Amino acid sequence: MSGAHEAVLAIDVGGTSMKGAVVTRDGRPLHVDRRPTDPGGDTIAAIVGHLHDLSAVAAAAGATVVGAGVVTPGMIDEEDGTVVYASNLDWRDVPLRALLTRAAGFPVVTGHDVRTAGLAEQLFGAARGVSDFLLVTIGTGVAAALVTAGRPVVGAGGAAGEFGHIPMVPGGEACTCGQRGCLEVYASGAGLTRRYAARTGVQLPAEAVVARLGGDDAADAVWADAVAVLAQGLATATLLMDPTTFVLGGGFTAAGDALFDPLRARLSEGLAWRPAPPVRVAQLGSEAGWIGAAALAFRSAGLGEAVRGWEPLAFSAG
Amino acid sequence: MSGAHEAVLAIDVGGTSMKGAVVTRDGRPLHVDRRPTDPGGDTIAAIVGHLHDLSAVAAAAGATVVGAGVVTPGMIDEEDGTVVYASNLDWRDVPLRALLTRAAGFPVVTGHDVRTAGLAEQLFGAARGVSDFLLVTIGTGVAAALVTAGRPVVGAGGAAGEFGHIPMVPGGEACTCGQRGCLEVYASGAGLTRRYAARTGVQLPAEAVVARLGGDDAADAVWADAVAVLAQGLATATLLMDPTTFVLGGGFTAAGDALFDPLRARLSEGLAWRPAPPVRVAQLGSEAGWIGAAALAFRSAGLGEAVRGWEPLAFSAG
Repeated sequence: MSGAHEAVLAIDVGGTSMKGAVVTRDGRPLHVDRRPTDPGGDTIAAIVGHLHDLSAVAAAAGATVVGAGVVTPGMIDEEDGTVVYASNLDWRDVPLRALLTRAAGFPVVTGHDVRTAGLAEQLFGAARGVSDFLLVTIGTGVAAALVTAGRPVVGAGGAAGEFGHIPMVPGGEACTCGQRGCLEVYASGAGLTRRYAARTGVQLPAEAVVARLGGDDAADAVWADAVAVLAQGLATATLLMDPTTFVLGGGFTAAGDALFDPLRARLSEGLAWRPAPPVRVAQLGSEAGWIGAAALAFRSAGLGEAVRGWEPLAFSAG
Repeated sequence: MSGAHEAVLAIDVGGTSMKGAVVTRDGRPLHVDRRPTDPGGDTIAAIVGHLHDLSAVAAAAGATVVGAGVVTPGMIDEEDGTVVYASNLDWRDVPLRALLTRAAGFPVVTGHDVRTAGLAEQLFGAARGVSDFLLVTIGTGVAAALVTAGRPVVGAGGAAGEFGHIPMVPGGEACTCGQRGCLEVYASGAGLTRRYAARTGVQLPAEAVVARLGGDDAADAVWADAVAVLAQGLATATLLMDPTTFVLGGGFTAAGDALFDPLRARLSEGLAWRPAPPVRVAQLGSEAGWIGAAALAFRSAGLGEAVRGWEPLAFSAG
């Protein structure tokens, strides 16, 4: 059997939907789909069902499944594959890797969604060849993957990278997490919507707030705060971690130059005595989770060398 | 020759003075001394002279010098042992390891003073057996050693750990570094002195400000700000790195319970949804630099196993 017929399954589990893929050893996605995370209230059963369906796709294409990678949000014990806590999934102490391996009949490796997306950007995306960087994803909320000397910062309890909740404004506005002045109170989709509504009484999605920039004082004001607080957070990370690069992903980056131009300027202003690391756009977007999960699965199967040959273009074609 | 007769030299180079030691393989310091860093304007010559004198001490004790460890402040390229920039020493691109090895006639390993102090606390002090922690030293200024999964965070340019300059107060008071609202503007010896003087017109050393707590509103106010900003910084590091422990060193910790009690309370208040890591006092104090440098030298000489047997008590007796 040729190596091209070995495949892995990859699932990126989110709070509302999960993405699944079948990826062959040459990095080609045979199949990518999306389905609800929790259709009948049993997320584990939904993931197992998804793995079975992806297996069938692989079999129909003549590929042998050598393993799977499943990534989730939350605090993860990476040693034993237990999800210690995931608020989005309402999980506590779920032995995910053991449960999925038993149900699947092939090895399943598990990981953290954002850290795995960071791995994907490092292998195939905007951080290719970069050893010290942060991937910051800004959507409804904010999370980050911190990579130092080529390795992800996991933290003692698997909870590193809570960039959205670093306290940037002493005594600042209340966060849903119970703290005050968190970065994502100001610099996130939910934050933009809430703060724009507080000024205008009008509830708009973040992209509609961005669309009003330049012609709406309230939009300009909440956007300026978002950029300033995000720049403060990136300056903080620069001084603590000394990265060479920031990679920004998530829906917030759709603002394009309206985000990146002032953000880069504010970051440079905030760092008086050292250059600001460049701020790049993530290349793999919302595909990064399953791409990284597939890479984890190949590595876990002892086929890490396969991953080195992948090209991002193969994915955007998938 | 018995292993007990092998020794390393260790020097911790500071802006005004440097500490030197001769340490035998069993971890016993045969000799510890301190001398000015820059008596005649040539710091490299002063370090080389110090190494020669320490060698003579070792020889007189019948010990064979198998190497030396020299640690300095600044941005350090740990690959090639170059000090890229050290403002205290007025150095730029000094190939320290190569210069010292050539002059000394035995292998010299170099390192960063605070990261090496972190290693010493990890091996022998308050972070013994801890894989994820920060050592934060608060004296005139503030610096930190970040350790994740047992490894120090060095950063791409050797500049990680600039905890004193993370921007904690948006648009806050000016720092000597050119930025505004840096942590050490509020939470350092120099910060206490400056802020107390701004309120009272009286210039006092930090310890005198601390001595007035409870009976002097200005002292109480600047101290409360220092504790609040330090707690905010520790909360930020907790959320980014997920450490199990903070170790605080430097002159600021002489305040004792007046520092640690409110700091622990503020840190817990600032972390709404996760427990605060314990905050401990550093055990090796100002000796941590040369102790860590000695450990680096033994490791570099292939005698890392010697270091594992050391006991902190051997040092306090030295």
